[in-house]
Amino acid sequence: MTRYQHLANIIADRIEQGLYRQGEKLPSVRSLSQEHGVSISTVQQAYQTLETLQLVMPQPRSGYFIAPRKAQPPVPAMSRPVQRPVDVSHWDQILTLLDARHDKSIIPFGGGSPDVTQPGLKPLWREMSRLVQHNSAEIFSYDELAGRRELREQIARLMLDSEAAVSADDIIITSGCHAALAIALLSVCKPGDIVAIESPSFYGTMQLLRGFDIKAIEIPTDPQTGISVEALELALEQWPIKGVILVPNCNNPLGFIMPDARKRAVLALAQRHDIVIFEDDVYGELANDYPRPRTIKSWDIDGRVLLCSSFTKTIAPGLRVGWIVPGRYHDRVLHMKYAASGTNVPTTQLAVAAFIREGHYHRHLRKMRQIYQSNMETYTCWLRQYFPCGICVTRPEGGFMLWVELPEVVDMVCVAKQLCELKIQVAPGSLFSASGKYRNCLRINCALPTSDKHREVMEKLGEAIHVAME
Amino acid sequence: MTRYQHLANIIADRIEQGLYRQGEKLPSVRSLSQEHGVSISTVQQAYQTLETLQLVMPQPRSGYFIAPRKAQPPVPAMSRPVQRPVDVSHWDQILTLLDARHDKSIIPFGGGSPDVTQPGLKPLWREMSRLVQHNSAEIFSYDELAGRRELREQIARLMLDSEAAVSADDIIITSGCHAALAIALLSVCKPGDIVAIESPSFYGTMQLLRGFDIKAIEIPTDPQTGISVEALELALEQWPIKGVILVPNCNNPLGFIMPDARKRAVLALAQRHDIVIFEDDVYGELANDYPRPRTIKSWDIDGRVLLCSSFTKTIAPGLRVGWIVPGRYHDRVLHMKYAASGTNVPTTQLAVAAFIREGHYHRHLRKMRQIYQSNMETYTCWLRQYFPCGICVTRPEGGFMLWVELPEVVDMVCVAKQLCELKIQVAPGSLFSASGKYRNCLRINCALPTSDKHREVMEKLGEAIHVAME
Repeated sequence: MTRYQHLANIIADRIEQGLYRQGEKLPSVRSLSQEHGVSISTVQQAYQTLETLQLVMPQPRSGYFIAPRKAQPPVPAMSRPVQRPVDVSHWDQILTLLDARHDKSIIPFGGGSPDVTQPGLKPLWREMSRLVQHNSAEIFSYDELAGRRELREQIARLMLDSEAAVSADDIIITSGCHAALAIALLSVCKPGDIVAIESPSFYGTMQLLRGFDIKAIEIPTDPQTGISVEALELALEQWPIKGVILVPNCNNPLGFIMPDARKRAVLALAQRHDIVIFEDDVYGELANDYPRPRTIKSWDIDGRVLLCSSFTKTIAPGLRVGWIVPGRYHDRVLHMKYAASGTNVPTTQLAVAAFIREGHYHRHLRKMRQIYQSNMETYTCWLRQYFPCGICVTRPEGGFMLWVELPEVVDMVCVAKQLCELKIQVAPGSLFSASGKYRNCLRINCALPTSDKHREVMEKLGEAIHVAME
Repeated sequence: MTRYQHLANIIADRIEQGLYRQGEKLPSVRSLSQEHGVSISTVQQAYQTLETLQLVMPQPRSGYFIAPRKAQPPVPAMSRPVQRPVDVSHWDQILTLLDARHDKSIIPFGGGSPDVTQPGLKPLWREMSRLVQHNSAEIFSYDELAGRRELREQIARLMLDSEAAVSADDIIITSGCHAALAIALLSVCKPGDIVAIESPSFYGTMQLLRGFDIKAIEIPTDPQTGISVEALELALEQWPIKGVILVPNCNNPLGFIMPDARKRAVLALAQRHDIVIFEDDVYGELANDYPRPRTIKSWDIDGRVLLCSSFTKTIAPGLRVGWIVPGRYHDRVLHMKYAASGTNVPTTQLAVAAFIREGHYHRHLRKMRQIYQSNMETYTCWLRQYFPCGICVTRPEGGFMLWVELPEVVDMVCVAKQLCELKIQVAPGSLFSASGKYRNCLRINCALPTSDKHREVMEKLGEAIHVAME
């Protein structure tokens, strides 16, 4: 983060905390320069940033004042999906989204990539390079089926932060969280089974269900507290549901962290109905606050929670290092790992193990949490500024995704197609519903830096939506 | 290869070609030293090597003579498996085999690892290191779903050697051949389906069937010409078989290359009965002779052959770089790749692409074909020397596996357990049958260098088998 961004954050925090009243004059450029030991131009840049965010406004020859506060957009209401098992659709649109990853001319606001350009990752690159040069015979042999023990030990330690006490033997390494969920589903479900999901839900996970011929039943989900335990219970009474897929921490796409009481309630419900919980914790370490939130797994006494996670969002997707803690399904999951994917690449596993062991991981994570939180605030300001009135926006407690609900008349599938021509990619809400709901919603990836270029994209996006409303 | 090994090979070749008759005197040490421009001690070492292989025998004060030729052990007869669909068993034994990979004190004659210690691989390590240092943002982002185009282009070129004309767009990269087969099976089959396999068949592939609840029907297979087309036809008439898994080139474990006429016959049969062929070509590039044999895929006009392969045996298992050419199932396979495994590690793909492009791959392959062929000859000599009479041994046309058939009384499952205590791991034949046949057989991995240590292991193995026969 540059100096002026840092300073802008400090001032923005003070404004958020209510230290200044609306219309009040802010400290002069000179006094801030003295207070923070930075140059005049740094303070000016910081104020200009805050001006862009509509937090402050300049008064000619008087300095900067607190801008009249635009209301924070409201959070979307509890979702109301079709509550019967359906086949997942929309593969074609998702394939287009995936293909766009490799067209460098496209701005990928629709994807889920984290920011992999941070200098904090350098020790990882160095370690990989070292391994290749000095341990080639080891890293080019077959991996252990459960994955490298060194890494599993580090993951077991990390998991203590979520209050889950597991050992290296309880963990099975996979090729990312996606493969972890695939193996977990294949181990527990058969074609024709029904699995409950949050609504909206990450499209990638829903495509697993489609791939394995599993039906999805979408459960109403609150953007602040998560899946409706009551609605889930009703569904369990009505349908032979095998399990439920949950992203309780830093949910994708809604950003909520389920309150502990609700996590325990959903676990109790799973016990009562004897179903499995597939817990996707891939964003869990990116919670705004530290220590990170607990996992449902941390209360799991009878091994019915299959926790799936990875370093894809916290470090880098290209590592393909994820894991499952499969509880009572350990042996089946190990066999299914052998059947469905075989062993993994040892190099990236060993590099990640060293990255964690030497403390780089926690440092990097601390930094990324700040960056993503700040990005999401900035993007929210831009939405307020460029999008029509009457939108609802989530207030994520972690991760780097914003979910925007637009007026019903807006068809984001159409808007997304128009934006394609401008080389802007967004993810229409319908991708996040098995039955194609949420066409008036979109998810925005805030891992993309808050540069002028991206601000302009948000402006164009806002324009396109304004046009769509006419 | 050292000088004396090289010289020993030359003399062994001359003996094999019949240039000397049995009992004939061989050239003197001095004359060979002059002919080949090597030292006296190099020639002596070469002769000692040939003596160990029982190809020559010393006569005191007269020099070396051609040893009385022990008959080459016969090749096993056509297999006679149970010809009805069965569930695959033996997972526990295979798990033990896999676990042993990481106990460095165990000598792994039972596994399938190639030799990854050759200096010809150095350019690959260098390229990986270079990539990590200079392209980190690229290689740590998400991969393309179909895999890196650079690599797919190189693979398309390699496949011309097998006379299969495919383009980069026809190829989907996977995490090794194992994942390729898994994705292919998941794309075509459902639980309860029946798939035909060669008998014996690689245990790993059979475990895929078990994992996905697919039944296996074992088809009689000849150790020199491959699956019995006649028996396969009978089975197709009797059972609703979905497809057949074949390793027609450098078969694992039997080592045969199916004659072209039989490859075409099996394809014609597949067309007539409208079934799929899963062609596993993972050892195909390791055929003793160059140019490499054709694949069944090379005659596939209606896209019913799903060719699966990888660089696991030709370069290194730790790369996890494989591929599918899925023919008419392209879109399903691409979706199933997304569902079952997600994207792959870009680093190893890019490194392999460069390794091929710069000519290192073909050089390395040439070398490895020679090494493995020579190793298999040496191991066959050791078998002749240390194993009881009456054994049958395959004469592989490529790859690095020997299949040994022992007298019926020998139970290799018991022998393997005893050998475990001596830290020697072998693969009993029963792992290669869905129904547990071939308990009197074993597969030997000849990628392990022909060192004194390994000769001693073969001696111990022979002793254990002698004891088992008493």
